[in-house]
Amino acid sequence: MNNFTFIDGGVTAPQGFVAAGVCAGVKQATSDAITKAAKANESPVIPNGKRDLAMIACDKICSAAAIFTRNLVKSDTIYVTREHLANGKAQAVIVNSGNANACNPDGYEKAAAMARLAADALGIDENDVIVASTGVIGQPLPLAPIENNVERLKALLSKDGSAQAAEAIMTTDTVKKEWAVQTVIGGRNVTIGGIAKGSGMIHINMGTTLSFVTTDAAISSEMLKCALIEAADVSYNMVSVDGDTSTNDTLAILASGYAGNAEITEKNADYYAFLEVLTAAFKKVAKQLAADGEGATKLLICSVKGAKDEQAAKIIAKSVIGSSLVKAAMFGADANCGRVLCAVGYSGAQVDDVRKIDVAYLSKAGEILVCQNGCGLQFDEAKAERILLENEITIVITLGDGCGEAEAYGCDLTYDYVKINGDYRT
Amino acid sequence: MNNFTFIDGGVTAPQGFVAAGVCAGVKQATSDAITKAAKANESPVIPNGKRDLAMIACDKICSAAAIFTRNLVKSDTIYVTREHLANGKAQAVIVNSGNANACNPDGYEKAAAMARLAADALGIDENDVIVASTGVIGQPLPLAPIENNVERLKALLSKDGSAQAAEAIMTTDTVKKEWAVQTVIGGRNVTIGGIAKGSGMIHINMGTTLSFVTTDAAISSEMLKCALIEAADVSYNMVSVDGDTSTNDTLAILASGYAGNAEITEKNADYYAFLEVLTAAFKKVAKQLAADGEGATKLLICSVKGAKDEQAAKIIAKSVIGSSLVKAAMFGADANCGRVLCAVGYSGAQVDDVRKIDVAYLSKAGEILVCQNGCGLQFDEAKAERILLENEITIVITLGDGCGEAEAYGCDLTYDYVKINGDYRT
Repeated sequence: MNNFTFIDGGVTAPQGFVAAGVCAGVKQATSDAITKAAKANESPVIPNGKRDLAMIACDKICSAAAIFTRNLVKSDTIYVTREHLANGKAQAVIVNSGNANACNPDGYEKAAAMARLAADALGIDENDVIVASTGVIGQPLPLAPIENNVERLKALLSKDGSAQAAEAIMTTDTVKKEWAVQTVIGGRNVTIGGIAKGSGMIHINMGTTLSFVTTDAAISSEMLKCALIEAADVSYNMVSVDGDTSTNDTLAILASGYAGNAEITEKNADYYAFLEVLTAAFKKVAKQLAADGEGATKLLICSVKGAKDEQAAKIIAKSVIGSSLVKAAMFGADANCGRVLCAVGYSGAQVDDVRKIDVAYLSKAGEILVCQNGCGLQFDEAKAERILLENEITIVITLGDGCGEAEAYGCDLTYDYVKINGDYRT
Repeated sequence: MNNFTFIDGGVTAPQGFVAAGVCAGVKQATSDAITKAAKANESPVIPNGKRDLAMIACDKICSAAAIFTRNLVKSDTIYVTREHLANGKAQAVIVNSGNANACNPDGYEKAAAMARLAADALGIDENDVIVASTGVIGQPLPLAPIENNVERLKALLSKDGSAQAAEAIMTTDTVKKEWAVQTVIGGRNVTIGGIAKGSGMIHINMGTTLSFVTTDAAISSEMLKCALIEAADVSYNMVSVDGDTSTNDTLAILASGYAGNAEITEKNADYYAFLEVLTAAFKKVAKQLAADGEGATKLLICSVKGAKDEQAAKIIAKSVIGSSLVKAAMFGADANCGRVLCAVGYSGAQVDDVRKIDVAYLSKAGEILVCQNGCGLQFDEAKAERILLENEITIVITLGDGCGEAEAYGCDLTYDYVKINGDYRT
């Protein structure tokens, strides 16, 4: 068991990293292009006040790795970033919100141009720049706002810039997400920090939404990639907001090595110490992403125990957390156990005996068993409602099949989800 | 190519069948039980006016078959019906709404008792009764309302009773679904008719929601089962309202043989003529079920062409029609092509080249291409909105991979869906 402490700060908490976020006008230009059905670069760029361009940079070349969406339709930023990370090295990140630069004929060129603009401003190699975008799909990325603001962005880079960078990657997120955690690895103080955006289109079995992580640990890019995959598997990959998966999801990490620990190059004790802290941080972020799902009023956690194995537990937890009917029932504080049993039943997971399933709801206001041995119970509806009116609900599903356990994270389905997505682009 | 005509009427249109539907008080008793957290049979049964008990009967024993939900958690009505259909024979159907009789400790006994009550009233063998339920899961089925009303129900059986039976199986449906179709098979006039309920919890890859079909064709139970499976595969199984699948879904068919055609006992020309008509009827019902999805304001049809094969086309059509983001965008008349491309990309179907995908929207108001060769187009937003404000929208996806085609049916995601499912039980 490793010791670690969450601290204030974000992506600039680890040694060597600075960040900044500005309002460049990408959002405004994209929105104008849609509203006016005119070309983005011809419409006047009047920034709407929201930050939409962020940069993260290190004063040295870092080990780096990233994992991406599994959607076959990918933003060109992913192809560019993948090429740039082929050597396991990076020094900076440039990312915009408001336009996903996906499904555009000139997407690759513009993603490469974004990286080049950042590299030129920073005086580094464009191959050492990670590039990412998030926002509307199928609208040409307006490059002018980025070109016109990249020098200003570079000038603003500072240790205090994490919050602004976190803001700049938000789309329909209502709160910015940043985090930092400290631990000791190989006798040296190590810090890991990050920013993330989520909201809609977060689904299980994805790399992630946009998340950028920095650390001053010394660790090889191969081990960074392994740690990303392992940590994401029980955190980002267990989040579902609406079952849709994005074209742009990117989870990238840069390691400066300034902590001075012996470089982690294999799966030794130091690797597992690093992985444990990264996993704890990613689980915290996963809950934040779920709680801030589009229109969400509640964080839902589905905790499955006693499944045949971990795989079955994961499948069941994801199925329940992804059920529109469960999500709507939780919004309405309706202790409907049928919705939960249904979602277990159609999950596709092997369940030895549905007559051994118990279901309970748990929150700060208490716990109530609503289903025992596969059968609905007569329960105290008033107590159930009190429990379900809290803003963090755990649905506990206990099977009698084995020792498999898993947790998935989601949110309720609300009127606002429909409102947000009924007219997303403008 | 067979000739057939849709005619007025429903499940009683074929020769030999009568039906009825009454308000027995199952809904009220179940709702009372939840509201008061008291035992259903102890609460006063004051019918709330909605029909909730239906019967369909034939004056002779019929060939019969049924297909059921694939959910592992099943209503006990399914186990009872499956046993009763083991010999391929049935003479009557009894079905209630308001209570699903699923996830109850005494569900099997009560389902068997329902069948027995119907059999006693009709003077037939209980093994010749198909039993089904729909409604709230995990609440004991109140038998008293059924016991007290089954004789009245029997007395009301008539050729005019189809509409009442169709009403009695509705839950959150807003319109009753009944249909009838006439054709000629083996030189004899053949009629097929049916009633159906749908609304929430209709998902692809299911038997169906509750649907009862009658015909006066002479056809063996084995061929009835084959025809059900084949027709459902391109109709009921291509409908998605909310991605959830029910514990109770049942699609049952009874054939009286009164048409006098040579009995269909193998896959000959008469079988395919029967299948063609059944498929056309089921597709019509599938669209009705989708259009009347919970809270729906629009029927959505996803038409996929040029996929690698039919299987890939089906997977893509289902993925798009099931996407919450696509559904919300259609509610908002937002011609977002990114949502559609995304759903193609994460569908899991093999797509050879995403840069060959075209997407268009089509309705009575016209057609507009919004994506060509995998890239979003600049299009006339006003025209797009006019097209999407219609109440039947086809999303046409053309790939460049092969000759696979498929159609899936769904509806938009609306505020009312959330409202309906936020507190479904009471």
